Amino acid sequence: MSGSASSVPLTEARVLALSGGVGGAKLARGLGRTLPDWHLAVVCNTGDDFSHLGLEICPDLDSVTYAMAGLADAARGWGRAGETWQAMETLRALGAADWFALGDRDLGLHVWRTERLRGGATLSEIAAEAAARLGVSQHLLPMSDDVVRTRLVTDAGTLDFQDYFVRRRAVPVVSALQYPGAVEARLPAPLAAALAGGWHPDTIVICPSNPYLSIDPILAIPAWRDWLTRVDCPIVAVSPIVGGRALKGCAAKMMLELGHEVSATTVARHYGALLDGFVIDTADAALAGRIGCDGLAVRVLPTVMYDDADRDALARAVLEFAGSLAAHAPARRR
Amino acid sequence: MSGSASSVPLTEARVLALSGGVGGAKLARGLGRTLPDWHLAVVCNTGDDFSHLGLEICPDLDSVTYAMAGLADAARGWGRAGETWQAMETLRALGAADWFALGDRDLGLHVWRTERLRGGATLSEIAAEAAARLGVSQHLLPMSDDVVRTRLVTDAGTLDFQDYFVRRRAVPVVSALQYPGAVEARLPAPLAAALAGGWHPDTIVICPSNPYLSIDPILAIPAWRDWLTRVDCPIVAVSPIVGGRALKGCAAKMMLELGHEVSATTVARHYGALLDGFVIDTADAALAGRIGCDGLAVRVLPTVMYDDADRDALARAVLEFAGSLAAHAPARRR
Repeated sequence: MSGSASSVPLTEARVLALSGGVGGAKLARGLGRTLPDWHLAVVCNTGDDFSHLGLEICPDLDSVTYAMAGLADAARGWGRAGETWQAMETLRALGAADWFALGDRDLGLHVWRTERLRGGATLSEIAAEAAARLGVSQHLLPMSDDVVRTRLVTDAGTLDFQDYFVRRRAVPVVSALQYPGAVEARLPAPLAAALAGGWHPDTIVICPSNPYLSIDPILAIPAWRDWLTRVDCPIVAVSPIVGGRALKGCAAKMMLELGHEVSATTVARHYGALLDGFVIDTADAALAGRIGCDGLAVRVLPTVMYDDADRDALARAVLEFAGSLAAHAPARRR
Repeated sequence: MSGSASSVPLTEARVLALSGGVGGAKLARGLGRTLPDWHLAVVCNTGDDFSHLGLEICPDLDSVTYAMAGLADAARGWGRAGETWQAMETLRALGAADWFALGDRDLGLHVWRTERLRGGATLSEIAAEAAARLGVSQHLLPMSDDVVRTRLVTDAGTLDFQDYFVRRRAVPVVSALQYPGAVEARLPAPLAAALAGGWHPDTIVICPSNPYLSIDPILAIPAWRDWLTRVDCPIVAVSPIVGGRALKGCAAKMMLELGHEVSATTVARHYGALLDGFVIDTADAALAGRIGCDGLAVRVLPTVMYDDADRDALARAVLEFAGSLAAHAPARRR
């Protein structure tokens, strides 16, 4: 360990955010910028992780790390700013699989992580060390140190996530999702240790990530669902569906294929009794009454984040909303 | 396999060259440019190979591949032209060992090779495929598909090659060299198969490489020494020592430390009865009589290669020299 990450225990964190990749990473960055150093812990989906060309790749952890470190490429929307693709060109010349774009800067992290994993380090240790080394002053955790993989049942067969999402560009029609490994998976070691010591956060934020691909893998782990059901703090989610569209990725397409209306309402219903509060976009203000009809607190906010000012504003408003729920000691819905 | 490499059997080769990295690669490139496609087979030292950050790295095979493919960086003297170092910067930021410079273009080859080796491919298959994919129309082979490692006994302890050469910049004083694995190592599979079919080359060239670090690992393999001692064709070496200096690397320093005169004479004596002919530089013309006193044919040539014209000229002259030895059926010295 580098020391800088391990020297600050997770128990310093007051806010815990659950996040997928790019979309969730934006709010995570805003929360990180808004809160004092080490007051935020971001838990990342690892259902998308995969082995590729002998490298262990963690797309969501990396997206969040890059976003929080200020290293993300804003224009491209994924990967690192100033990225180059020279190794990829060599790999292509050699006839290697080239459907997953590996930037040179990104590749350094994959090579390092793969060697650390082979050397026996846990993903929690590696995620914390990478974040600290790249300048992040917040806690970054995988959803588990155990292997959980998102798999999609589609009209093209049952597919691994990256095969579906990157290689096949999310074209196959999805009928169900599976999270093999989830039932056996444990909480990440630093969280388990903090909980064993009686720690709990003041607020839990579910970032505007794809519910099926990014948050459900976390919720599919019984230890996570148990804890989130019992935890004594408000849980607030931000809708990734705005105006009937997904801002990023394939959440809307998947929602339709799974037989649901493409709407923030579907997201709220999906998380159900887990939530104390739900944030929808101003474009969806008309849905507030319907979503809140069974007692769920709803807040209407501008949720589309173009720059750090947007991210900071949303982060502040979400934290304020969660604070109001805690202050008013709402009837717990779960 | 890509097919292009495997479709031309080694038995098409007429000239076999033994080479280390950068220095030998220059003559190998000249030979490749001079001979018809697939008439040259270059056997590379693999004693320098090592595992680093989980990657399997073959410096000499890569240097020769890049040189023959016209991808080498002439100005820097090693690695690929147009190289960038972005992955290395990430690795350094993450606190990874940074004493071995990994270029982004180069890294693509290491990632690919590591995965192919883990998948069960032999180094012969990988070397041939990489060369063919990168545009080389000559045979490229490792000295063995088995693991042989060069180790140096020094005043700083017994060191692995890369530790001595790169990490410690060849500073420790060398008292002996070891080649663990050599005694058990076999000929590379394509060569063993060709020999089993009765093939032999017309000429064998020992490139101007470090005798101790680049050629001795090959000669330390009993199957290689046996074959080279029996083979029915001229063996010609080109001195890597010119005017009492090594053109590249640490051959001169090592020669001194091992108690020898830094001279082309020492190189000729080192290879001894294995050689039919020996090429020295015009700067060393005065040594010709002394080196040839026990019947070794000596040719004085300009051996310093600055560009492809120099490489081609030396290659042609060396082949002509070897041809003259074959034509005159010299009394075999071995």
